[in-house]
Amino acid sequence: MYVFETQIRVRYGETDQMGYVYYGNYPLYYEVARTEMLRSLGLSYKQMEAEGILLPVRSLNVCYLGAAHYDDLLTVKVILKELPAIRIRFFYEIYNELSILLNTGETELVFVNTVTRKPKKAPASLLAELKPYF
Amino acid sequence: MYVFETQIRVRYGETDQMGYVYYGNYPLYYEVARTEMLRSLGLSYKQMEAEGILLPVRSLNVCYLGAAHYDDLLTVKVILKELPAIRIRFFYEIYNELSILLNTGETELVFVNTVTRKPKKAPASLLAELKPYF
Amino acid sequence: MYVFETQIRVRYGETDQMGYVYYGNYPLYYEVARTEMLRSLGLSYKQMEAEGILLPVRSLNVCYLGAAHYDDLLTVKVILKELPAIRIRFFYEIYNELSILLNTGETELVFVNTVTRKPKKAPASLLAELKPYF
Amino acid sequence: MYVFETQIRVRYGETDQMGYVYYGNYPLYYEVARTEMLRSLGLSYKQMEAEGILLPVRSLNVCYLGAAHYDDLLTVKVILKELPAIRIRFFYEIYNELSILLNTGETELVFVNTVTRKPKKAPASLLAELKPYF
Repeated sequence: MYVFETQIRVRYGETDQMGYVYYGNYPLYYEVARTEMLRSLGLSYKQMEAEGILLPVRSLNVCYLGAAHYDDLLTVKVILKELPAIRIRFFYEIYNELSILLNTGETELVFVNTVTRKPKKAPASLLAELKPYF
Repeated sequence: MYVFETQIRVRYGETDQMGYVYYGNYPLYYEVARTEMLRSLGLSYKQMEAEGILLPVRSLNVCYLGAAHYDDLLTVKVILKELPAIRIRFFYEIYNELSILLNTGETELVFVNTVTRKPKKAPASLLAELKPYF
Repeated sequence: MYVFETQIRVRYGETDQMGYVYYGNYPLYYEVARTEMLRSLGLSYKQMEAEGILLPVRSLNVCYLGAAHYDDLLTVKVILKELPAIRIRFFYEIYNELSILLNTGETELVFVNTVTRKPKKAPASLLAELKPYF
Repeated sequence: MYVFETQIRVRYGETDQMGYVYYGNYPLYYEVARTEMLRSLGLSYKQMEAEGILLPVRSLNVCYLGAAHYDDLLTVKVILKELPAIRIRFFYEIYNELSILLNTGETELVFVNTVTRKPKKAPASLLAELKPYF
């Protein structure tokens, strides 16, 4: 298992008139957390794209438990429970500053060749970095 | 069962550098479709809020099957499979102009009292409009 | 002069906790209006990109006079005051359903070759469509 | 003069199919920079709202000089050139990691009473913090 945490400050433009973070903004937070997780492993999603691999999202689940507010400093926990193959599944937990769990989520992404847009295996460099944790 | 369809034109700012609609923008499309479905029943979500009812989202699932592109005129199908009680579940299907199914989704929302933020029953006006379909 | 109008319904996710449309969302509305103006001339910005022309924005000015609210059906007026050359300037006025002017704006965009990313003249097809109005 | 700098990492969802940050996302970056500038002075915009002051934007100007890309770590410089009165004007400069200036901007905001939504003077606490710099 590989667990990583990063922090995100809620922007004003991410709230809605209910006074909470709009439900549709959490996928953006999840994306930030995925990117930072890869960076923590010495990898760069940007670099991966430059090398011909895209990582489109295949599914998204979010369970909303509590609300995030403007200016909250959120902690996003990302968890990999298994080594990726053609697919990679990320699990997420978002906490506010009081350590209250605001939502849990899950995304499944597929490694795809940039040119052919066909699925392919996870890059060796990613697997090499992740193996010690599994 | 109550089925409703509405159309959404993809905006440039909703695409990402992969050349597709960003995965995090579909919840916004679902929201538009929910609002228009209520309008088709002679109801207004805006009016509902003014009358003291909020409808926060409790869960979101999206299954991405294909990509939407800039300027695509999407058809969003919204389906209610059961009469709402304290919760209301919407199912979604998004199609492009070639009638290709791009994604399916589901959201569960809860009727909440604006002041107390506590759950409450679906408003009678909504139930009255929906009953003939179930 | 060429004047065009289109309508945009405010989405919930476009509001912020002040209860208004977030100030950063108007550029998106302006983009929609530009695209629809081109379509009204029988042109497609999507098609233009496919033919090797990008149209990046060089400057943006917005003057906020009043607030738009959730579910408002806005009218966006787009005005071309001169024939485009290498640059094209759009002027905007956004009105709510009571015909109250909510903001005025201006954007300058540059025709750019997709491959070289160097400036180039406005496409002949666009000029041909616009000439009768000037 | 009071000058402040903060950093923002470009998110994938903030790019568009041109491969750059969408022009409509910079106002969001400016907002983040304003908030962090206030925090650097020991003030909180969130707190200000809680104390009955809103700060809606009255005008926005952006001059786009170069493009920001996905994963760029941008430096946003915010400059106050004069003490605020009823209005406060922020100037912005955004740089990429190569210290290339990508855009310059300016926003004018008005202090407003949350309840009456009428203009009012800048709060004394803000003026007290800023005075030493002017």
